[in-house]
Amino acid sequence: MTWYKATLEISTNGKGLFDLTPHLHSQIESWDIEEGICHLFIQHTSASLVISESYDPSARRDLEGFMDRLVPEDQSWFQHTMEGSDDSPSHMRSILTNTSLSIPIDDRTLTLGTWQGVYLFEHRSRNHLRKILIRCQSMEE
Amino acid sequence: MTWYKATLEISTNGKGLFDLTPHLHSQIESWDIEEGICHLFIQHTSASLVISESYDPSARRDLEGFMDRLVPEDQSWFQHTMEGSDDSPSHMRSILTNTSLSIPIDDRTLTLGTWQGVYLFEHRSRNHLRKILIRCQSMEE
Amino acid sequence: MTWYKATLEISTNGKGLFDLTPHLHSQIESWDIEEGICHLFIQHTSASLVISESYDPSARRDLEGFMDRLVPEDQSWFQHTMEGSDDSPSHMRSILTNTSLSIPIDDRTLTLGTWQGVYLFEHRSRNHLRKILIRCQSMEE
Repeated sequence: MTWYKATLEISTNGKGLFDLTPHLHSQIESWDIEEGICHLFIQHTSASLVISESYDPSARRDLEGFMDRLVPEDQSWFQHTMEGSDDSPSHMRSILTNTSLSIPIDDRTLTLGTWQGVYLFEHRSRNHLRKILIRCQSMEE
Repeated sequence: MTWYKATLEISTNGKGLFDLTPHLHSQIESWDIEEGICHLFIQHTSASLVISESYDPSARRDLEGFMDRLVPEDQSWFQHTMEGSDDSPSHMRSILTNTSLSIPIDDRTLTLGTWQGVYLFEHRSRNHLRKILIRCQSMEE
Repeated sequence: MTWYKATLEISTNGKGLFDLTPHLHSQIESWDIEEGICHLFIQHTSASLVISESYDPSARRDLEGFMDRLVPEDQSWFQHTMEGSDDSPSHMRSILTNTSLSIPIDDRTLTLGTWQGVYLFEHRSRNHLRKILIRCQSMEE
């Protein structure tokens, strides 16, 4: 078993889904891992990870609209408002989605389904630099 | 360390929870893994994985009813409606639950708690064939 | 690769977030793992795991208030009410958060982001003893 590690840095410019899939594919291709598993971990509490539909951009717009409605901003009962109206909602949206994901690798590539893409879900309005830790285990002897 | 892999195929006939637990137990038993970890990954964006109460079927019916209410179909603001009214909601319900899960193995079995079962959560109304990748690491020398 | 395992037992006294971070740090420190990955698994369906903001306690109070509003108790359509009004909602809140988490280890510590903490989210009102399985892989030869 061999262990590979890298950090992926992504600049975000407002709320929404940012596609990580091409970055992950090229990183795993460069490591030439025949088969194994890839662990992803985002080091933030106001941005998260999701796997969702990659074919039609309207699916992503609906996910963004849904999250805005499910976790509304500016609620009168919020106590944690130091950093603005999107502060507490960003933590709520993060715990409803994922901070860690594990994806198998086969035939030198992530075994995503036909329509699956891996996305960073940014929950803050301002610009941010986000860090995702990539940790892969290659199972060859 | 030894690496085991299989694909579990499950036919679904409408929305709801489908029990994967007996399939997983028999697969891991057949591999005779003394201890390690089992990674599950579902290759779809309109069906997902959850671990929940396995004893009382009414708990599962409540989970199904809850998800129908939390993520309503047929909203006027949906843009992604090509495949019907359960299309966009299926992606929303998937990102709120899980695409990947990791469960320890001890004493040749998944270390589920007394009341835990592993379920596929189907979010589409039509019949589907769903694929779940099973990847296990056995920790014996 | 070396495999480490332990069970963390946490007493909860009502609904809310309980900080696991110091327990995890001291366990991993005692194992002296230079680098690898730490898998967490909670063996319950009415308590879950989340990674969230660790600095300001008001962020945690807002998460608790949010979950109470998102998944209300005492709904007339609940069928699973044997153990009281917080029974079915506890399973709903669990599937919206996490039963398993995987966190990388670097430099002998969990690679949490600056503001990240690991929490048990208790969804039942009564006192409970909760078990979290800790499974770590150390990647040194």
